[in-house]
Amino acid sequence: MVSPTTPTQYAHELAVQARAVASTLATLTTAQKNSWLRRLAADLRAHATQIHAANLLDLQAGQASGLSPALLDRLKLNPERVESLARSVEAVVALPDPVGEVIEGSRRPNGLRVSRVRVPLGVVLFIYESRPNVTIDAATLCLKSGNPVILRGGSESLQTNLVLSDLLARSLTAEGLPEHALQVVRSTDRAIVGDLLSMGKLIDVTIPRGGRALIERVTREATMPVIKHFDGICHVYLDQSADEQMAVDIVINSKCQRPGVCNAAETLLLHREAAQRFWPALADTLLKRGVQLRCCPESLVGLPGAVPATDQDFHTEHLDLILNVRIVDSLDQALSHIRTYGSGHTDAIVTSCLQAATRFEAEVDSSAVVINASTRFNDGGELGLGAEIGISTDRFHARGPCGLREMTSYKFVIRGDGQIRG
Amino acid sequence: MVSPTTPTQYAHELAVQARAVASTLATLTTAQKNSWLRRLAADLRAHATQIHAANLLDLQAGQASGLSPALLDRLKLNPERVESLARSVEAVVALPDPVGEVIEGSRRPNGLRVSRVRVPLGVVLFIYESRPNVTIDAATLCLKSGNPVILRGGSESLQTNLVLSDLLARSLTAEGLPEHALQVVRSTDRAIVGDLLSMGKLIDVTIPRGGRALIERVTREATMPVIKHFDGICHVYLDQSADEQMAVDIVINSKCQRPGVCNAAETLLLHREAAQRFWPALADTLLKRGVQLRCCPESLVGLPGAVPATDQDFHTEHLDLILNVRIVDSLDQALSHIRTYGSGHTDAIVTSCLQAATRFEAEVDSSAVVINASTRFNDGGELGLGAEIGISTDRFHARGPCGLREMTSYKFVIRGDGQIRG
Repeated sequence: MVSPTTPTQYAHELAVQARAVASTLATLTTAQKNSWLRRLAADLRAHATQIHAANLLDLQAGQASGLSPALLDRLKLNPERVESLARSVEAVVALPDPVGEVIEGSRRPNGLRVSRVRVPLGVVLFIYESRPNVTIDAATLCLKSGNPVILRGGSESLQTNLVLSDLLARSLTAEGLPEHALQVVRSTDRAIVGDLLSMGKLIDVTIPRGGRALIERVTREATMPVIKHFDGICHVYLDQSADEQMAVDIVINSKCQRPGVCNAAETLLLHREAAQRFWPALADTLLKRGVQLRCCPESLVGLPGAVPATDQDFHTEHLDLILNVRIVDSLDQALSHIRTYGSGHTDAIVTSCLQAATRFEAEVDSSAVVINASTRFNDGGELGLGAEIGISTDRFHARGPCGLREMTSYKFVIRGDGQIRG
Repeated sequence: MVSPTTPTQYAHELAVQARAVASTLATLTTAQKNSWLRRLAADLRAHATQIHAANLLDLQAGQASGLSPALLDRLKLNPERVESLARSVEAVVALPDPVGEVIEGSRRPNGLRVSRVRVPLGVVLFIYESRPNVTIDAATLCLKSGNPVILRGGSESLQTNLVLSDLLARSLTAEGLPEHALQVVRSTDRAIVGDLLSMGKLIDVTIPRGGRALIERVTREATMPVIKHFDGICHVYLDQSADEQMAVDIVINSKCQRPGVCNAAETLLLHREAAQRFWPALADTLLKRGVQLRCCPESLVGLPGAVPATDQDFHTEHLDLILNVRIVDSLDQALSHIRTYGSGHTDAIVTSCLQAATRFEAEVDSSAVVINASTRFNDGGELGLGAEIGISTDRFHARGPCGLREMTSYKFVIRGDGQIRG
């Protein structure tokens, strides 16, 4: 590696190098990309010990600096996890190559054949925290979609990322692909991030994955489009006609299966009639599962284990075993609550009434509207997009889970026989 | 109209009012939207005299302030043009409603039915210059795609726009639609634009249409996504195998049919063998059509009517009867020229060689790649998108012509029978 003198020079070099290989990456065949994926999986397995050794250095430093056990666990990349990472790389082989897909086409009255063809989005800047396996996930998804990527991981995982960086470079070279297709930022200097974010002329899109502070910084400083991932304040509404067992299953799954993720439920809305039928039993089940209930005055009655909800609670993504509860008079009141407090991420209804399902589907404006299923299904893998590179809370370009296709743009191809415009 | 005290208050009022009707607009039926379009067309015809009278005031003011004849012509809205405007409104009735379109859908292994359904993009801020018919075009396209819009026209057309604003409000009310769906900014205070651009929390997208200064200001100040429309530095490349007559027709059409628009050609690249065959004849035809030729040393030889091209010429969107000319050795050199000097808008090849066509299509990264046809076909109407609200030079969200579909986002609808995640 060249050792540049300043962070700005280093950032500029990374961006220029990525830009320089963009057109080569855009025209790689699927076979070339898949061959590289298979080699990378093999290389990961062959270097599992070396990766683990580097990871232990990160873990020791993390322990010394007082990282929480949860963060240390996220940071861990032992041989078993390397094996599962290698398998996830191999899974990308099976995903359809989005580049070159003909989205639609037609023959115009004058005989022109027009088609809209997917092309890569361009140079990607990926900024993420903690988990070093994201380095490999993002690298494989960007390469499969033909986009050069600059990968900037958290400082906690630098030693692991340096080893992964070498592996990536070696595997690219071995396959005759440009080494600058996948560049790991080999420094934790935060100034480099600011410099990269200023390079809107060289970098086409930035994807931040991490906490709110990271995303807000990126949104503020970026001079290129950003695929943002903000709050998931997700609701489950139990309609008056909801089946009790289905309601219980969906509420428990939406809240408890993995409370720390964005598509977990934060608020339970119950139609008064549903509440009368089974709120005491459901509340009991939730409390037994260790869920703290923050309740409206009506749902609080007779629940010694629950606490009153504040207005702020209904605006909060708890990301924990905490559930806001509110009893409503009608579907309209539920819709109005979701409009006021929701974040447009994922909202579910449990109902047996076709009209209620139809209205909920039409009137809830969220990236995923779920009828009689868990909110946890708003996920690229579950929705059939294959692996996801992020989840967008924006309405522009891509909304909800972003898979390989969402990492593309398109161009119009116009084929004629000499047509001119009259 | 309420008369607000400050530009900031007025801008805020416009944005809040637009936001407040967004969910109503998103759920209008196609029949309701089409009924309004028909009424608007009728109202335009019924008020043609009144529109013309207001337009005469704008024209007088424009003359007094020294607007060029071309600009005055763009500003003009006489009864014949009102009739053609009414017809363009009626044409939008026939365009498919993009809202509710199921983009794709599948059944997942666990029985979940997943579909991706188009929804409106949200509140639109449309900023444009001069032509008052854009007020009606943008209003109809935004309403048909379910998006509330704030329309900010040029100060030159204020009187005309005030009359059109009243017509829009009256027709909406008469159809029982929210009057704030389509709001014309009834002031030419430029501070209002700055205030609106700062309201990224209320406005979802800004579309500027006008000169470079406008677009640069909007890009700089906007706190929401922008659909940009920058330079069209479009090329026609005549391959060694190009048919002479086809080449002449396409070059003349691409350059001369409407030289002031973005999809007109600015640069002609000729393979040396094509140049030897017919450059003198083609040059003669171009000169006779009044085109000024700015030539590389080789193409300049023997052309007394031509001038030498500078490097800057090849970077310039002339928007006039001026054509840069360069002779190249190979397709590779042509591709390299386009990569260096092009703006990624529209580039055409004239060739009889399948391999050259295939490489050009794959390797030119422009919003439209054209094979054996005029560059002028990169247009929403010509490509089958129906009317267009703008042409995007970005890669993000929409690229090239933006029709009704490009004014939408989507949501995932997930229908189950009680599925939970394992």
